[in-house]
Amino acid sequence: MDVISYRPEPGEFAWTFGGVSPVRKVKPGDVLELWTEDCFAGKVRTPDDLVSRVIDFPFVNPQTGPFYVEGAEPGDTLAIHFISIEPARDWAASTTVLLFGALTSTAHTPTLQDPLPEIVWIYEVDRAKRTLTMHGARGEYSVELPLDPMHGTVGVAPASFEARSSLVPDAHGGNMDTPEMRAGVTCYLGVNVEGALFSIGDGHYRQGEGESCGVAVEGAMDSVIAIELIKGVATAWPRLESDDYIMSTGSARPLEDAFRIAHADLVGWLASDYGFDPLDAYQLVTQIAESPVANVCDPNYTFIAKAAKRYLPQGDPYRGARAKLRELSKTYSGSS
Amino acid sequence: MDVISYRPEPGEFAWTFGGVSPVRKVKPGDVLELWTEDCFAGKVRTPDDLVSRVIDFPFVNPQTGPFYVEGAEPGDTLAIHFISIEPARDWAASTTVLLFGALTSTAHTPTLQDPLPEIVWIYEVDRAKRTLTMHGARGEYSVELPLDPMHGTVGVAPASFEARSSLVPDAHGGNMDTPEMRAGVTCYLGVNVEGALFSIGDGHYRQGEGESCGVAVEGAMDSVIAIELIKGVATAWPRLESDDYIMSTGSARPLEDAFRIAHADLVGWLASDYGFDPLDAYQLVTQIAESPVANVCDPNYTFIAKAAKRYLPQGDPYRGARAKLRELSKTYSGSS
Amino acid sequence: MDVISYRPEPGEFAWTFGGVSPVRKVKPGDVLELWTEDCFAGKVRTPDDLVSRVIDFPFVNPQTGPFYVEGAEPGDTLAIHFISIEPARDWAASTTVLLFGALTSTAHTPTLQDPLPEIVWIYEVDRAKRTLTMHGARGEYSVELPLDPMHGTVGVAPASFEARSSLVPDAHGGNMDTPEMRAGVTCYLGVNVEGALFSIGDGHYRQGEGESCGVAVEGAMDSVIAIELIKGVATAWPRLESDDYIMSTGSARPLEDAFRIAHADLVGWLASDYGFDPLDAYQLVTQIAESPVANVCDPNYTFIAKAAKRYLPQGDPYRGARAKLRELSKTYSGSS
Amino acid sequence: MDVISYRPEPGEFAWTFGGVSPVRKVKPGDVLELWTEDCFAGKVRTPDDLVSRVIDFPFVNPQTGPFYVEGAEPGDTLAIHFISIEPARDWAASTTVLLFGALTSTAHTPTLQDPLPEIVWIYEVDRAKRTLTMHGARGEYSVELPLDPMHGTVGVAPASFEARSSLVPDAHGGNMDTPEMRAGVTCYLGVNVEGALFSIGDGHYRQGEGESCGVAVEGAMDSVIAIELIKGVATAWPRLESDDYIMSTGSARPLEDAFRIAHADLVGWLASDYGFDPLDAYQLVTQIAESPVANVCDPNYTFIAKAAKRYLPQGDPYRGARAKLRELSKTYSGSS
Repeated sequence: MDVISYRPEPGEFAWTFGGVSPVRKVKPGDVLELWTEDCFAGKVRTPDDLVSRVIDFPFVNPQTGPFYVEGAEPGDTLAIHFISIEPARDWAASTTVLLFGALTSTAHTPTLQDPLPEIVWIYEVDRAKRTLTMHGARGEYSVELPLDPMHGTVGVAPASFEARSSLVPDAHGGNMDTPEMRAGVTCYLGVNVEGALFSIGDGHYRQGEGESCGVAVEGAMDSVIAIELIKGVATAWPRLESDDYIMSTGSARPLEDAFRIAHADLVGWLASDYGFDPLDAYQLVTQIAESPVANVCDPNYTFIAKAAKRYLPQGDPYRGARAKLRELSKTYSGSS
Repeated sequence: MDVISYRPEPGEFAWTFGGVSPVRKVKPGDVLELWTEDCFAGKVRTPDDLVSRVIDFPFVNPQTGPFYVEGAEPGDTLAIHFISIEPARDWAASTTVLLFGALTSTAHTPTLQDPLPEIVWIYEVDRAKRTLTMHGARGEYSVELPLDPMHGTVGVAPASFEARSSLVPDAHGGNMDTPEMRAGVTCYLGVNVEGALFSIGDGHYRQGEGESCGVAVEGAMDSVIAIELIKGVATAWPRLESDDYIMSTGSARPLEDAFRIAHADLVGWLASDYGFDPLDAYQLVTQIAESPVANVCDPNYTFIAKAAKRYLPQGDPYRGARAKLRELSKTYSGSS
Repeated sequence: MDVISYRPEPGEFAWTFGGVSPVRKVKPGDVLELWTEDCFAGKVRTPDDLVSRVIDFPFVNPQTGPFYVEGAEPGDTLAIHFISIEPARDWAASTTVLLFGALTSTAHTPTLQDPLPEIVWIYEVDRAKRTLTMHGARGEYSVELPLDPMHGTVGVAPASFEARSSLVPDAHGGNMDTPEMRAGVTCYLGVNVEGALFSIGDGHYRQGEGESCGVAVEGAMDSVIAIELIKGVATAWPRLESDDYIMSTGSARPLEDAFRIAHADLVGWLASDYGFDPLDAYQLVTQIAESPVANVCDPNYTFIAKAAKRYLPQGDPYRGARAKLRELSKTYSGSS
Repeated sequence: MDVISYRPEPGEFAWTFGGVSPVRKVKPGDVLELWTEDCFAGKVRTPDDLVSRVIDFPFVNPQTGPFYVEGAEPGDTLAIHFISIEPARDWAASTTVLLFGALTSTAHTPTLQDPLPEIVWIYEVDRAKRTLTMHGARGEYSVELPLDPMHGTVGVAPASFEARSSLVPDAHGGNMDTPEMRAGVTCYLGVNVEGALFSIGDGHYRQGEGESCGVAVEGAMDSVIAIELIKGVATAWPRLESDDYIMSTGSARPLEDAFRIAHADLVGWLASDYGFDPLDAYQLVTQIAESPVANVCDPNYTFIAKAAKRYLPQGDPYRGARAKLRELSKTYSGSS
């Protein structure tokens, strides 16, 4: 097991998936200790740091990577296992962004109304207590919320020679913004180009479902991931696996299409890897699915479709990749 | 506390919200013991009972009611508290329905493709163990799932002189098909006509989020509800309250509009009843919302937006109606 | 040929399709001379008549009718032929309406932004010149536009025991707001209840495609229609026919579903009445369709799909109903 | 006036906008004589050439270009004027494509149904008569349709370091598939990268509105365009101008968002270049817009919003660029 530590210099971030040269070569079985900057490139630190003032578009949502995975070829699947995702700062930021979010008109759902004002909320993080504190920016209100760290953005270079902004979620992963992307979870991504060229970023110290205002509790992260490659197995849309669930994702507009993609993929997964007839799988999904919405603010909206393993027959998706990754995780944790 | 027991005769069901004469008069503070038929009017009992054969449209999704609530006037809010929701049979049914469901083309999302086949799944219910058993209709597979009884359809007569099919969810409630409509929950509905004219039906012994194939585990129910009226308080979209959560609903297409309605309503609720500035409420909702999708198959899709009470300041929504209803519930349970 | 003249008294309007008693009985072959009030019930007459002040919801979009058509039964088709549609006043009104329209947030696409201001535009009508004149309400601008009178709302009682607000377009017709509903056009509507119970209203002196702000140039109308009944021929969604085109409609959200309904119906119409294989029809529609969007502001959005008759083989849709109606039109025009 | 003739070699096509090196440098005032291949790279020539057999994805929709425009910088606008668009072959092809089109489920609107069959239609082109002939592939039917040549795909390199498949329409233009992109029309595109890097392709010998089956009458083209650059004038979404109309475009999902983008842009254009108050412009657009839907099949759907110049005050959009381009057109036509 090789352990690779990497903290990008300010000029080393990627702002797209695809179209960027790799920062490192890694191989299946490696463990990576990575630092990721927050989605504002660390520039929103006080209530006066309005996004319209401090951010120079398109330099938003910096990604750590991309990493070239040796042996990865189109048609394979890359598995990224999150060993740990830990806040790298004792503060975090959220904000409204002009014409961005679920409860405002936007550039893609334009109206003739005035935009909402820009407001910044700075959160205090207590890593020992595993909490963060929100203070009202406009009224007297404070609340302590549990830390629930996750990565909003995880992806590979897209297919069809495309390069996509790190703000976009799609079949290549990217900015899915799902609270399910926690430590302990394995993310499966279809490989579209040689080397896969994966990146991660956009740490959230916590996030509600749907990410209504478009911005979670954004913070830099220290994350440890392990990498595995499943040769010759394709993955159409990103999938996740935890100890208790298999999960499909879909990213599209309108939101019902994201739902359809995730749930049709889950039905297909049950059919291909768990022995189900597709219509029996459709019935089971209808009665057991847990379907947390991820984001309703990004260029595509994202849905997750979860099936609890306790209701499923024995399956071996991705040829035991997750078992191997959990072994790596144990070995790493024992040694560190 | 008056307890009213009512089991509709075959000819007494309502098939719409609005446009129907009341079956009983009730008053705030009453407890109702109701029996509800399943959405198929009890006609799908074996694998051969295909919907296209046994159902005579529009006689689908029969409702128990409507009930005329004394004193209820437009601009008031009706609170329906679910004291208990219990399966009335030891079997239940699910099925695919031609051109209905999230993963098929439909009458409103038509394509030129052939429809999926009609298949019936009959579930066995073990009320002692609180489980139900699914058997694959096409492959060898059986699984025991927990009972989680709920009502898919709860509503009042709509505004604007409308009458709506019991298949439709909208601002008057109706066929929201949310698993959150469980025993212990209070449902708030805006009153649009004198007497409110509420009905309930469409019991589900359990249901996954989104109700993908369009049909949950459908069964007759024995349900006990308590009624309260909040005079002079309007409710734009149905709301729910449990011990731990306040919840807003939205029903619309596309699905992002259902999300928007529910989350904008939750922001507004926090502002009006919990003292929040609207933009602070928007921020809090962004970070704490739990947002289970209810259905992605009905004429309108339905989303729920939940805020955990543990993160909220003291509030007194609906003038303590829920406390009164829980008292009624205790009195009833003590006496029965 | 019986000619029936009817001008509703103030208290005689219908505000829904369905749920209303007929004002007159008519029979196939009758000609009706009708007066229709504007969508504001004539209450917006000056720049100070803001909708929020003068309209008492839901008393908006009054309909002339309903008319009971002798012999009409579910499964039949009612044909309404527009012999003439003429402005009944020398002025007309348009306005923004709070939280209504395509370029604002609305009750069903809510945001947290402030609404647009309410502004009224009063148009002058020159019936001799066939023009109307718009003056800027906020800036110096005047323009003369051609009169192009049409009915925004034409429909029958809906199926499934429903009653729908006159603001809603759906399978029963209703508030489709298409500029194609002009004099010379025949509208086919599926009959859902005995007597069909059709109404018309919502005259527009002209309207752009999509009706962006939600309100056309609204005015009272003197309209003459002829009625025909096609027994035993069902119509799923309203269809139109002119000398040059057959047209299908679809009303739904999101807008692509309205498009799908209209175009799938047109493909089906070519297959059933013009001898096409469905996939050849799909190909032809792809290359010749003219597809004017009707409204993008009502509770359902409406699309029209048109096929030019010059590209079609001989067909006899609706058993020559249009030929009979044109004869009636000629007879009426000759006699009046 | 420099005239540049360019016919790409088989290996010289671009398959994306962005991420590709230019094939030529050109300058404002140049005229380009270009040959474009059809969207199938010329591989669908007979009824047996099913897309699933002959196309090697992602090598579909080849673009002629990109061209580097000297002096073009982000924040400028590139004007492409279509002097002529002429069929380069005497045949053309259309086809159904598996899981692509408006009246089928697709990869982004998945269902569990079987796909429609693949069928090819080969059209005969009569350039002298200006017609093309369709023959039914499944039934006896032939029809002569007028030629109406246009380019489905016109665009520049996108912003945010993105590269987008030539199948995608968005703010950079691309695969808008609008029948309005005819000879005589000027297309304005915002410049996002140095040199603009524009390409064109995807000739359609004709196309219905919405391009229902996803494939127009596809053919190679000989096109002549003139280029102009408007320094320091930004363009957010592609715009078109003809002798009679100014036109805005919007590309998004759901379709109502494409409508909103196009119509909000048109309102903004009237305000910025024609002196309108925005709400007066909203009113005018409501009454005069012609709003042809372009495509309802591509990764984003596209709408056009047109305002007839005869209703507008004098305006000088883009500093008279179109007048210059028409001069170039005349000079070129006189000399050739």
